[in-house]
Amino acid sequence: MQASGLLRCPRRVAVLAVAAFTLPAYAVEGMWMPEQLPDIEEQLEEAGMRIDPEKLADLTAFPMGAVISLGGCTASFVSPNGLVVTNHHCARGSVQFNSSEDNNLLVDGFVARNTAGELPAAPGTRVYVTTRVEDVTGKVEAAANERMTPRERFQAIEDTRKALIAECETGEGFRCQVEKFFGGASYKLIERLEIRDVRIAYAPGDNIGRYGGDEDNWLWPRHTGDFAFYRAYVGPDGNPADYSEDNVPYRPAHFLKVSRAGLDAGDFVMAAGYPGTTRRYARLAEVEYAFDWLYPTWHRLITDWVAAIESAAPAGSDARIKYESRLAGLRNFQKNTEGQLAGAERVGLAERRALREAELEAWVGAAGARGRYASTFAEFDGLIDEVTADARQDFWYDRATSPQLLGAAQRLYRLAVERTKPDAERESGFQDRDMAFFTQRLQVIDRRFDPVVDKAEWLLFLDGYQAQPEEQRVAAFDAALRLDDADDREVLAAHIGDFYSATELGNVEARLAWMERPVADFEASDDPFIRLAVALHEHEIADEEESKTFEGRMSRIAPAYMDGVIAYSESKGQAVYPDANSTLRVTYGSVYGGSPKDGLIYEPFTRLEGITEKDTGREPFNAPASQLELIAAKDYGRYGLASIGSVPVNFLTDLDSTGGNSGSATLDADGNLVGLLFDGTIESVNSDWDFDPRTTRSIHVDSRYMLWIMEKIDEAGHLVDEMTLTTTR
Amino acid sequence: MQASGLLRCPRRVAVLAVAAFTLPAYAVEGMWMPEQLPDIEEQLEEAGMRIDPEKLADLTAFPMGAVISLGGCTASFVSPNGLVVTNHHCARGSVQFNSSEDNNLLVDGFVARNTAGELPAAPGTRVYVTTRVEDVTGKVEAAANERMTPRERFQAIEDTRKALIAECETGEGFRCQVEKFFGGASYKLIERLEIRDVRIAYAPGDNIGRYGGDEDNWLWPRHTGDFAFYRAYVGPDGNPADYSEDNVPYRPAHFLKVSRAGLDAGDFVMAAGYPGTTRRYARLAEVEYAFDWLYPTWHRLITDWVAAIESAAPAGSDARIKYESRLAGLRNFQKNTEGQLAGAERVGLAERRALREAELEAWVGAAGARGRYASTFAEFDGLIDEVTADARQDFWYDRATSPQLLGAAQRLYRLAVERTKPDAERESGFQDRDMAFFTQRLQVIDRRFDPVVDKAEWLLFLDGYQAQPEEQRVAAFDAALRLDDADDREVLAAHIGDFYSATELGNVEARLAWMERPVADFEASDDPFIRLAVALHEHEIADEEESKTFEGRMSRIAPAYMDGVIAYSESKGQAVYPDANSTLRVTYGSVYGGSPKDGLIYEPFTRLEGITEKDTGREPFNAPASQLELIAAKDYGRYGLASIGSVPVNFLTDLDSTGGNSGSATLDADGNLVGLLFDGTIESVNSDWDFDPRTTRSIHVDSRYMLWIMEKIDEAGHLVDEMTLTTTR
Repeated sequence: MQASGLLRCPRRVAVLAVAAFTLPAYAVEGMWMPEQLPDIEEQLEEAGMRIDPEKLADLTAFPMGAVISLGGCTASFVSPNGLVVTNHHCARGSVQFNSSEDNNLLVDGFVARNTAGELPAAPGTRVYVTTRVEDVTGKVEAAANERMTPRERFQAIEDTRKALIAECETGEGFRCQVEKFFGGASYKLIERLEIRDVRIAYAPGDNIGRYGGDEDNWLWPRHTGDFAFYRAYVGPDGNPADYSEDNVPYRPAHFLKVSRAGLDAGDFVMAAGYPGTTRRYARLAEVEYAFDWLYPTWHRLITDWVAAIESAAPAGSDARIKYESRLAGLRNFQKNTEGQLAGAERVGLAERRALREAELEAWVGAAGARGRYASTFAEFDGLIDEVTADARQDFWYDRATSPQLLGAAQRLYRLAVERTKPDAERESGFQDRDMAFFTQRLQVIDRRFDPVVDKAEWLLFLDGYQAQPEEQRVAAFDAALRLDDADDREVLAAHIGDFYSATELGNVEARLAWMERPVADFEASDDPFIRLAVALHEHEIADEEESKTFEGRMSRIAPAYMDGVIAYSESKGQAVYPDANSTLRVTYGSVYGGSPKDGLIYEPFTRLEGITEKDTGREPFNAPASQLELIAAKDYGRYGLASIGSVPVNFLTDLDSTGGNSGSATLDADGNLVGLLFDGTIESVNSDWDFDPRTTRSIHVDSRYMLWIMEKIDEAGHLVDEMTLTTTR
Repeated sequence: MQASGLLRCPRRVAVLAVAAFTLPAYAVEGMWMPEQLPDIEEQLEEAGMRIDPEKLADLTAFPMGAVISLGGCTASFVSPNGLVVTNHHCARGSVQFNSSEDNNLLVDGFVARNTAGELPAAPGTRVYVTTRVEDVTGKVEAAANERMTPRERFQAIEDTRKALIAECETGEGFRCQVEKFFGGASYKLIERLEIRDVRIAYAPGDNIGRYGGDEDNWLWPRHTGDFAFYRAYVGPDGNPADYSEDNVPYRPAHFLKVSRAGLDAGDFVMAAGYPGTTRRYARLAEVEYAFDWLYPTWHRLITDWVAAIESAAPAGSDARIKYESRLAGLRNFQKNTEGQLAGAERVGLAERRALREAELEAWVGAAGARGRYASTFAEFDGLIDEVTADARQDFWYDRATSPQLLGAAQRLYRLAVERTKPDAERESGFQDRDMAFFTQRLQVIDRRFDPVVDKAEWLLFLDGYQAQPEEQRVAAFDAALRLDDADDREVLAAHIGDFYSATELGNVEARLAWMERPVADFEASDDPFIRLAVALHEHEIADEEESKTFEGRMSRIAPAYMDGVIAYSESKGQAVYPDANSTLRVTYGSVYGGSPKDGLIYEPFTRLEGITEKDTGREPFNAPASQLELIAAKDYGRYGLASIGSVPVNFLTDLDSTGGNSGSATLDADGNLVGLLFDGTIESVNSDWDFDPRTTRSIHVDSRYMLWIMEKIDEAGHLVDEMTLTTTR
C-alpha cells in the first residue's frame, strides 16, 4: 500500500529522493515511457502483446488517453460518461470525508443509485487527464551554458521551467509540469486537464475494499477488493469547474473496456500508471548512504516515534483517532524499510552495484572516445559524497523543525517574503497557482494535530538533534529553543511547552489570516512559532542556496553520467528506461506466482474460498455474511476461472511497479482492463534500487472479482451496465 | 516449538488439560499406540510401510525400543554406545548450563572430541528407556466398584495406582507410571529404566540449531538445524547411577540406523514419539468453555502479562535475563492460542463438534441396546458443565496464588503435612520418590526470580482476581492480603510489598531448610509467604477434595462415553486411537507440502540455498560464514537430493503430532532414521481438538542436513562414523 506522504520533506530541494517513501517496485524489468515502446516492439510481440506499440506511444490516444492520474494514485476512465475506476485505498479518504458516526460509509460502503446521488470527493481530489506532451530538452539546454556558475545554472533551468509552465497554463483548467528524465538528459512539458469536481460513485465497504487491512499489507496470499469508482464532472461548458449542482459528467476522449473473461496463469499482462520514484541508476556511494545510514536511522527513529505517539495518545483517546493515519503511515514505512534492508542483504545490493560500476569502468577504459566518462564518474561520485554528507548533516535539524505549527509558521513567513516579488519570480510552492493547495494544507492540520502528541514528537526529535555531534547543530535554532540551558529533558519540555500554550496557530482561522499579512507583521509577532520561523529564516535560505548550488552542479553532471550508462547499455543492445518520476509508464510481463522464497510457491490467483478461510468475523477479516453465503453456494455467476475452480480474487504478476502505481490499469494483450494493480509483495520493495526478477511481484485485484462483487453483493449492476464489458481472452 | 512448562498448573488435579499448553497437532489422523498397528496393517501396507506391524507393536524390541523419552521431549538411540539424538531445542538447556560469558557454547556450539570430553547435561536431565508395558485395566477396575461414592472411587483407583508403581519400582534404577487411555477405559503400567547420568556429546551453535529463532517459530518455510546429541551413561555395573567419572556409556538393546539417502516428496514416513495432550474426543461443552472463555481469557491475560514483565524488567537489565525464558514461553503460548482460535474459526470447530454429537446421538437412537449411551452422554455433559464452571471459578484464584515464593511456601507446608503420613499414603508429588525433583524445583527459582518482577506479576493477577464477581473470591485469601482495605492499587502494592521485604524464602538455603521442618514450625512462622500458605491450606484441601470427587465421577462416566464413541466408530469400520497422554505413539503419512492456505503452496523440502536467502548476518539469521561459503560453492557432498537440486534442510509431512513429539524419530518405511520432528505449522495447532487434514503439517529436520553439518561444518565426523548409515531408500 502506498506509503503516507508525511515522510516527504517538502521544504527542501529533493536532491536525493529516497525511493522507500513510496510503494514497492516489481518483475519483468522496465518502467517504459510509452513513447519507448516502439523501440522494444519485438520483445513486446514475443511476450504476447497484440496492440501496435505505436498506438500505445500516443499518450492522448486510446488506450493511454484513458489512463489518468489522481496525483499519487493512478486511475482509468471506464465509461463515456466520466466513470473512473481506481483502488479503494486511493478513494478511501473521500469515503471517510462523507462518513459520520451515524452513517459510516467506511463500514457500510456506498453505492449511488444514479448520478444525482453521487457525493463530492474529499477536498483537493483531482483527476488529471494528459492532453499534450512536448519534449522541451532543447529549450532547457539553451537556457543553461558552460560558463555559468552552478547557482546560475540552477536558476536558468528553474526560470525556464517556470516560464514554460506559465505559458502552458494560460489555457483555463490546465495544469502543467516540466519533468526531467535520465537525470536531466531529457525534459518534457506535460499538459494535463485538471478536473476538480470529482464525486464518489461507488466504494465497497472496508470489509471488502480493505479486506485483510494492515495485517495483509505487502503480503501474498491476498484477498482484497481494492477498487472503487469516482466520476469526473465539468461545467456545462465542458471545462473544469468547482463543484456545482449544474456540473455535468465529463466525456472523456477515451475509456477502457472491462474484461469479464480476465486472464489465466502465464498470460501476457501490462500495467499503465504513474510510478513515483526509483533509484535503479544510483551510484554505489548513494546506495551505501541509504542502506548503511539513512534507512537504519529512520528505522530506529520510527520505532521510537510510534512508541512516543502511542504513549502520548493512548488507545481510545480522541488524540489517537487524529493520529491513526500517521501511525498507519509510519508502520507502513517501517515495514517497507525492513523490506528494503532485508532485500538489499538478500540480493547483495552493494556488491552487485560495485560489480556494475567495475564493468562500466572497464568498458570506459583508460583511453579512446569513451575515456571522457571516467572523469564524469569520478566527478559524479565526488558530488554524491558532498550531497549525502549534507543530507546527513541536515537530517536531525529537519526532524527537529518538523512540528506541525512550526512548519505552518515557516511556510506562512516564507509566503510573506515571496509575495514581495512578482509571481513569476517566486519560489515554486509560493506562486498564485499554488495557493489552493497551500490553503488546504493549513486547513487539514486540524484533523491531524494534538498539542500533547505534537510536543511528544518534538521532544523525541530534539533528543536525536541534541545527540548528534555539536558541529551538526544550527546556532539560530539552539538559541531560539535555549537548548544550551536545557540539559535535562524536563527543562526542555518546559521550554517547548511554552510554545504550545502561547501560540495562536492552533486555530485554523488564525493560520489562514496569516496568509495575508506582510513580512513586518511576522517580525513584530509574539507568537513563539512565528518568532522561531523568523529566527530560522536566514539559515533556511542559506541551506536552500546550498541545495540549489548542488542541484546546479547535478544538472550538469547527472545527464553526463546517464549518457555513459545509456551508451554502455546500447553497446550491449539493451534499451534503457528512465527512473520513475511520477510520469506515465508502461510495464509488461505475465501472470506469474513463482517461488520468491525457498520452500514456498505463490499460486498466481487467490480464490473466493480463501476469503472464507481467512474470515474471523472481526476486522480486518469480516466479509459480509451475504458474501460468505454466496461463496458457500459456489455461486460464481459468469466470473469463474476453470483452471482454479472459482472466481479469482487477486492475482500476481511479474510486472515492474512502485509507489504511485496504485490504481494502475492492468491490461490484457488487447488493452482491456483485467484488474487494478494495488500493491507489491514485501520481497519486492528493494527492486526500487535493484530489480530482482526472482522476488518482484505486483498484486492486482481481478476484474472478475470486481464485477462479481458489483453484481452479486453491492447492487451496483447499473455501473456494470454503464461499462463496456468484453468476453474474449 | 514446545510451549514452556510454566503455564501448567501442577497444584490442581488436571481434570481438563488444555491441549494448547504443549506443541501443535498435525495430518494423516491417528496417534496410534504401537500395539494397535497390527489392527491397521492393511492401511499401513497400502501407505507403503515395509516393516511388520507386529514388530512395531513390541515397545521393547527394534525399532520402538530405540525410541526413548527425555520427559517432555522424545529422543532415539543411534549407536550401540548410548549415543542419543534429539532436537537442539530439547538439549539447549544443557548447552546453556555449560556456558559462561567467556565460553558461550550456545554461540559457538560444542563438539566433544571423544567421550572423555563430553559434558554433564543440565541437572535433572534424564533418559527413560521403556523396559516393560503391562495392561493393568483389570487390576484398577477390580479396586473400584459401583457402590462406592465418587470420592471413594477416586481413592481406590489412586491407591491401586500407587501400589502398582511402588511394586514396580522395587527394581533399582526403574521409574514406573500408570497411565489411563480412552478416558480410563484402559490402564497401563509402564516400566522405564531411568538413566540419570546424561552428557552432551554435540550440539551445533544457535546459528544452526536455532536458525530462524522465534521469528520462524511455527512457520514454513523453515531452515532450522534442530538436532543435538546426548550420550547416556550408567555405572560400571550397567545400572543407572549418578554422574561419576567411573561411569561408562550405556549399551542400549536397540538403536536406529541413520539414513543418508533420506526421503523424497510423497514417500511413506512415520514418527514415533511421546505426544503430550490432545482433546479429539472432547464434548461440545468443553470445546465451548475452551474457545469461548478459557483461550480468550488467557489471551488477554498474556498480553498484559508480557507488558508487565517488560515494564518491570527493562531490556538489558539483569532481571530481564532471568525472565527471557518466561517471556519466550508466554509469547510462544500466545502465538499458539492465536493459532487455536483462528483454527477453530477456520474449520468451524463448534459446528463440527455439534454435528458429530448429533450423528452419535442419532446412531444411539431412543431404544435398543445402544440406548444406554443416551443417558451416559447426558450425564457426561452435565459433569463437564460442573467441572468447567469450577475451573472458571478457580481461574483467577489460581493465578493470584501463583507468585513463585508463595508456590514454594505452599509446596513446603504441604510436604510437612504429608510427611506426617506413611510414604505410601502421601499425595503424589510428596512421596520419597518425588524428593529429587522437589528439591530441584526449589533450587531453580534463583535463576528465574526477581522480586520486582514477581511483585508486578502478582499485582496483575490480583487485578484480575479482584475484577471477577465477589462470589468467586476466596475469603481466606482476601483476609490474608487485606484486600478489603486495598481499594486502590497503591495500597495493595504496599501490602504485597511487605511480603517481599520480610520473607526469607528468596534465599535458596532457607527454602531447602524448610523441607525438613515439622508442621508446627510453619504454623509458628512469621514469614509472610509461609503464613499465607498456612492460611490458604484449608481452602486448598477443600478444593482438592472437590476435584478428587469430580475425578471419581469422571472415572466412571468418561470410559462409558468412550465406549460409546468406540462402538460407533467400529460400526463404521474405523479404528479408534486414544487421545495423546505422553505415552509412546506412532503416526504415519507421507512427505507432503500441499496448500494449507489459498494462494500458497508449501514445497515439501527447503534447500541449503534458502539459508543464504534468509541470512542477514544478525541473529537469528546468522549462519556461519563457512556454511554460506559451502552453499555458494554447491558443495553438497553425499547429501544432495536430485529432485530439489540441493541438500534438503527441513521437510514437511502430513503426520499427526503435538507437543511432546519434539525430537521424535522420523522413520522411513524400513524404520531407518530420516530426520527428527521438531515443530508444526501454526495452522496445525487446532488439530489438537479437531484433526484438519488440509492444514495439519509436521516439520522435520532432514537427516541429510544433520550429516552434512556434522561432516562439513562442525567437525563431528567421528559421531557420523559411530552411527550406522544406510543408503537405501
